[in-house]
Amino acid sequence: MRMYDMIDKKKYGKEMTKEEIEFVINGYVADEIPDYQMAAWLMAVYYQGMTDEELIYLTDCMAKSGDMVDLSEVKGIKVDKHSTGGVGDKTTLVVAPLVAACGGKVAKMSGRGLGFTGGTIDKLESIPGLVTSMEEKKFFEIVNRLGVAVMGQSANIAPADKKIYALRDVTATVDSIPLIASSIMSKKLAAGSDKIVLDVTVGSGAFMKKKEDAVKLAERMVAIGEGAGRETVAILTNMDVPLGEAVGNDLEILEAIDTLNGNGPEDFKEICEVFAAQMLMLSGSGSAEECKALIKKAISERTALKKFAEMVKEQGGDERYIYEPERFTEAPFKKEFTAEQDGYIFHMDTELCGKTSVLLGAGRTTKESDIDAKAGIRFYKKTGAFVKKGEVLATLYASEEQKLKDACEYLKAGYVFSAAEPPAQKAVIARITKDGAEYF
Amino acid sequence: MRMYDMIDKKKYGKEMTKEEIEFVINGYVADEIPDYQMAAWLMAVYYQGMTDEELIYLTDCMAKSGDMVDLSEVKGIKVDKHSTGGVGDKTTLVVAPLVAACGGKVAKMSGRGLGFTGGTIDKLESIPGLVTSMEEKKFFEIVNRLGVAVMGQSANIAPADKKIYALRDVTATVDSIPLIASSIMSKKLAAGSDKIVLDVTVGSGAFMKKKEDAVKLAERMVAIGEGAGRETVAILTNMDVPLGEAVGNDLEILEAIDTLNGNGPEDFKEICEVFAAQMLMLSGSGSAEECKALIKKAISERTALKKFAEMVKEQGGDERYIYEPERFTEAPFKKEFTAEQDGYIFHMDTELCGKTSVLLGAGRTTKESDIDAKAGIRFYKKTGAFVKKGEVLATLYASEEQKLKDACEYLKAGYVFSAAEPPAQKAVIARITKDGAEYF
Repeated sequence: MRMYDMIDKKKYGKEMTKEEIEFVINGYVADEIPDYQMAAWLMAVYYQGMTDEELIYLTDCMAKSGDMVDLSEVKGIKVDKHSTGGVGDKTTLVVAPLVAACGGKVAKMSGRGLGFTGGTIDKLESIPGLVTSMEEKKFFEIVNRLGVAVMGQSANIAPADKKIYALRDVTATVDSIPLIASSIMSKKLAAGSDKIVLDVTVGSGAFMKKKEDAVKLAERMVAIGEGAGRETVAILTNMDVPLGEAVGNDLEILEAIDTLNGNGPEDFKEICEVFAAQMLMLSGSGSAEECKALIKKAISERTALKKFAEMVKEQGGDERYIYEPERFTEAPFKKEFTAEQDGYIFHMDTELCGKTSVLLGAGRTTKESDIDAKAGIRFYKKTGAFVKKGEVLATLYASEEQKLKDACEYLKAGYVFSAAEPPAQKAVIARITKDGAEYF
Repeated sequence: MRMYDMIDKKKYGKEMTKEEIEFVINGYVADEIPDYQMAAWLMAVYYQGMTDEELIYLTDCMAKSGDMVDLSEVKGIKVDKHSTGGVGDKTTLVVAPLVAACGGKVAKMSGRGLGFTGGTIDKLESIPGLVTSMEEKKFFEIVNRLGVAVMGQSANIAPADKKIYALRDVTATVDSIPLIASSIMSKKLAAGSDKIVLDVTVGSGAFMKKKEDAVKLAERMVAIGEGAGRETVAILTNMDVPLGEAVGNDLEILEAIDTLNGNGPEDFKEICEVFAAQMLMLSGSGSAEECKALIKKAISERTALKKFAEMVKEQGGDERYIYEPERFTEAPFKKEFTAEQDGYIFHMDTELCGKTSVLLGAGRTTKESDIDAKAGIRFYKKTGAFVKKGEVLATLYASEEQKLKDACEYLKAGYVFSAAEPPAQKAVIARITKDGAEYF
């Protein structure tokens, strides 16, 4: 086989075989295929797309390029949950202990945040003492005992994806739906869970800005998961407004604790319940109604909160912070962000909200950046709310006063006000399985 | 500017500015833009195409990346002629001296052959003593005095095209009509002539196999030439059958001499007359009728033949070979190629005919290969002829007997016979100028 012919074939939109796709991916990982040929192939894929068969072969090959986590030591059905990223997306922090409290098994491997979206690992590490790097043996043991643990992804998860992504990043081939789908799913397949629930976010604070694209991405990821023999469900969720009220690491932990205590913002509560229910159903814990009842009970009886505290303790963290969240100290500086006019908040540019939190110190601009756990934003009024001029819309937190001023100025551009009430926001948009899409 | 944004822009089919195109080309030539980004951009161009404006900027920038020949020392209107390549295409050998004999100025810079098509320089060099590398000063002087000279292209003509072509060659982005057009025209613009006549070949022996593609290529090249202020005419010619009877270097020189003597195959004579007439019209030598009359006279009075002999002599060649072509000795071995059945020759795979001549030694398989000037094929019966089983269709010439056997075997696959007479072949298909296409 010659890479030239592989490019030519894809260029003309012909379907590639398993052997051909393996030749391309393995050859590229082994440095036998140069970057320029891979770049041409990726651009051809951008235009010609990939069939489900091609995508299944591609993703399988990328997954197998590195460590394949073997979760067989963990008893029961392991359910994974993955989000395509968003602003204020702390769902895993609530859902993982909640599912475990209801009898599910969540062996969660997670990544760090980069850009305007945060990462679960970063958020967890803002709990004093908590460690996310551990031996697999210990990780399995905790999951077997507690039903849940969260560890950082191995550096050798899907190296093919890492290498290909780095090339896509400099050749303007990131925004290809099949390539995004295979990139995400290669890591999910390598992470070893039996079932996968995907949170495909859509809107101004997500990578998918348009619903049609999010639906396509969800469909492709479900096809890959099912093709690899892992039952996969995708939930399309609204990311056209920050999720919940809190954006920032400490702030999001606090909101997660609040939600595990039965409080928390309505939109975030709804999302958590939907994801926990999906994961429990895939675990064989019962019907939708039965799973919802289990969840209600785990919240009202605080067993999910207790599960979270136990996990924190097992991972070296100070569990007192979970039961006494007032132990988290506030950032040294804060500033109120107020409405400049009367009216409804018609739209919030949610990516801009996320970038504002990065400006404040809550996120990374490069892989090497440090994170300020206390920095962030608490949004009191979101899209759809009627506000008066001068009313406080949000509080911004930072460790430097100047950052607050800059961030407030920057955040202004993210709001659109209107005289008429905007259409109501729905937290959950659709559920996509191998059998099709169901819209809410 | 960032190359990433240039890829992204082209990927979405947006029109690039002159400055952006210059950034891409100059950056690539200066090794500031890596191959992988250029490969992605080229593949995006493959899918999105280029507007005439973009193409004019691109070609101008590629032309200016190296030596721009200044022909101002040559008096009068300089007319260039270029063919997109074919099998048995020795048109320049006749047309250049013919135009000069009629008062035109042809300062021809030519390339060597590679693959299944031959090159003018290779053919000329089969005349003993003839040299095609010379100082520009001497070249100008010969053109001023005789009206014609042919020299090898400077190594530094359009280096941007060379570098880009090498990358296209390994990334399956050769077959993009705008990229082909700019590649050819960048060298024509750099070669400095005032007017350009293009021979765009079409059919099984040409790079353009389909008429629609050839028309598009012709239109784009005319647009580039006119955009650069050089009046440009393209003639679409039939390359679905070898041109004339001779394929191979000595053999083609002999056929050119024959034609300059007023003999020669009809299809080749017609092509030569059409091209000479176009070139003379662009030189301001008169109307179509007047130019045709000049050509007729130059052939019948042997002034074109004399011009050719003078040019050969000026370039160090032995002019006796022109007047006494029997001085060319035949190849050591030859073999008759005969019809395997009765019937009309319905089709000749002309690329395969060209490849057969390469097998015999007449062409290069790599840039470093040597050429056997005596090797080649003489076709007596071509598409449309009715032949009897065993009738001689062609004679093959080579320096090794084994090559003849292999080549005969290979050539067989190139013929399709039929009981019914195939449609007649037309040598000249269309004439394309900035005002549109005229079909014959």
